Amino acid sequence: MDLNNELKKRADFFNNQLEKFLQNGEPEILYDAVRHLPIAGGKRLRPCLAMISCEAVAGDVKNVIPLSIALELTHSFTLVHDDIMDKSKLRRNIPTVHLKYGEPTAIIAGDLLFTKAFESLHNLEGDLSIFKNVEFGLVDCVKEISEGQQLDMEFENRNNVTEDEYLNMILKKTAVLFMYSAEAGAILAGGTKDQVRALNDYGKNLGLGFQITDDYLDISSQKKVLGKDIGNDIRNGKKTLIAVHCLNHISGEDKKLFCKIFGNLDSSEEEVKQVYDLFIKTGSVEYAKKTAINYCNNAKKAIKILPESDAKKILLELADFSIKREK
Amino acid sequence: MDLNNELKKRADFFNNQLEKFLQNGEPEILYDAVRHLPIAGGKRLRPCLAMISCEAVAGDVKNVIPLSIALELTHSFTLVHDDIMDKSKLRRNIPTVHLKYGEPTAIIAGDLLFTKAFESLHNLEGDLSIFKNVEFGLVDCVKEISEGQQLDMEFENRNNVTEDEYLNMILKKTAVLFMYSAEAGAILAGGTKDQVRALNDYGKNLGLGFQITDDYLDISSQKKVLGKDIGNDIRNGKKTLIAVHCLNHISGEDKKLFCKIFGNLDSSEEEVKQVYDLFIKTGSVEYAKKTAINYCNNAKKAIKILPESDAKKILLELADFSIKREK
Repeated sequence: MDLNNELKKRADFFNNQLEKFLQNGEPEILYDAVRHLPIAGGKRLRPCLAMISCEAVAGDVKNVIPLSIALELTHSFTLVHDDIMDKSKLRRNIPTVHLKYGEPTAIIAGDLLFTKAFESLHNLEGDLSIFKNVEFGLVDCVKEISEGQQLDMEFENRNNVTEDEYLNMILKKTAVLFMYSAEAGAILAGGTKDQVRALNDYGKNLGLGFQITDDYLDISSQKKVLGKDIGNDIRNGKKTLIAVHCLNHISGEDKKLFCKIFGNLDSSEEEVKQVYDLFIKTGSVEYAKKTAINYCNNAKKAIKILPESDAKKILLELADFSIKREK
Repeated sequence: MDLNNELKKRADFFNNQLEKFLQNGEPEILYDAVRHLPIAGGKRLRPCLAMISCEAVAGDVKNVIPLSIALELTHSFTLVHDDIMDKSKLRRNIPTVHLKYGEPTAIIAGDLLFTKAFESLHNLEGDLSIFKNVEFGLVDCVKEISEGQQLDMEFENRNNVTEDEYLNMILKKTAVLFMYSAEAGAILAGGTKDQVRALNDYGKNLGLGFQITDDYLDISSQKKVLGKDIGNDIRNGKKTLIAVHCLNHISGEDKKLFCKIFGNLDSSEEEVKQVYDLFIKTGSVEYAKKTAINYCNNAKKAIKILPESDAKKILLELADFSIKREK
């Protein structure tokens, strides 16, 4: 079984459905802005997760299409607003929505993407209590994502973030949507309570491992393009697990040096390198890698109770991939 | 019966419920930002409309509390994002959310207010098909409001807006939420189909009359503070019914003059006054006033079929008030 192939097959199927759902509308510019990011592609990890979870408990993938679309639109909505907040210029190798359409239209486009996520759920078939259950889940998700985004911002200005605080932040900002994708996919497939719980647990651990790996990849891949992006993360004071671990394992002169450079936009390349050396000295890069592996193993353990199936194999490989990937 | 008293009684009751619903949360700054605008007061017209519509078809006001909260939070969410787009500094005589908490937190706070509107609907009791009905209605509403906001922005750069286009814009931007407030209030009260339709129609006409009166008041009250805010509207090229009507009833030199001044941020006070004189010359101010009165009369006609009650009397007075008010 080739994981990439399996994901691509589902992403292609999903893209077709999304294209149908995200028709043009009036005013045209607004709907162009709404389509800009979601139509630009991406891995479609959340929709795939919902589909594979559905398959893993013997459900019909057709039943989770409205959910899958809602997941991708919710993800897109948070990215569009995030990019405005971060003043980002590129996303998926194309200009961000606010760069292309201006900030006011980008704010409205984000709001409309959010609205259309809920609208997609209206296409769910079957029992109303299931609709209600899934709709409540999405509301809770977005609430937590908002809280996570705010925490992420606030942490940039704090040098005393604990590991627990960091984990709580990425749980909200990233993992809850993975968790919900897997859980709601299983609910719509008519999975048993134990199966739904198992997939919720899988999604949570996958999401945490995925986010920590993102942070880790940022650092390790940037070693090659020395000091460039890694410099930005350090200059912005971005609280990754690596930074948090390092901060909590240094003192005296090292801590003074760290606090002087970290989060200081004017830090030189030499100074940025000094912080990177502290990351290595404290074993923080290694620690983040090990932590991500732990979450990956927990994700795999979580779905032991599922019956054997191709879908289950994909989920197991996906957990491995989420920490072994190179981008 | 004193309309202000009746509205205040309901607004006070509503404020208590809202205060309970909008508890503090973590991160604290985000929840402070979320509470900032809705807790600052306001007329609570939409919640009142839902409550009075419920009463008008003999429903129990308690059943519409979650709806009323959802209405006010939806309204607040659009204002918070609108103020960012317009770079407004004051709202309800206090600093706007983005001015006090910064733009990134204001964007998230708006998103969270939107989320909490849906969360409030989860407290609706009774039949699930009614929950679904009301939830679908809110989704449609926000979709239309987004479209209306975009149209409003786009119209600022166009000098060929027709009256129909203007009416479609304010229908989406303002009237749909009034329409939905009255309609959903009646649905939750168990009103008959005819009653629900009547209150939908009432809300639509009330909303249109209300918005046109807003535009009209802006112009007439500004006559006193000569050229100040009216200057801003004219310099920003804001397409009110007055401006649209005027534009469609001038030609030749008048039109040239209008187009040179209207929407030009550098226009002098003298020039602004020239546009105002064109508003008078074309009878556009008078026309807007008459149009608002028409909508008010249509609103009153719409609810003729409702049984006589105190609530019905309040609705009739509310329609008159919406065009006779002075602020």
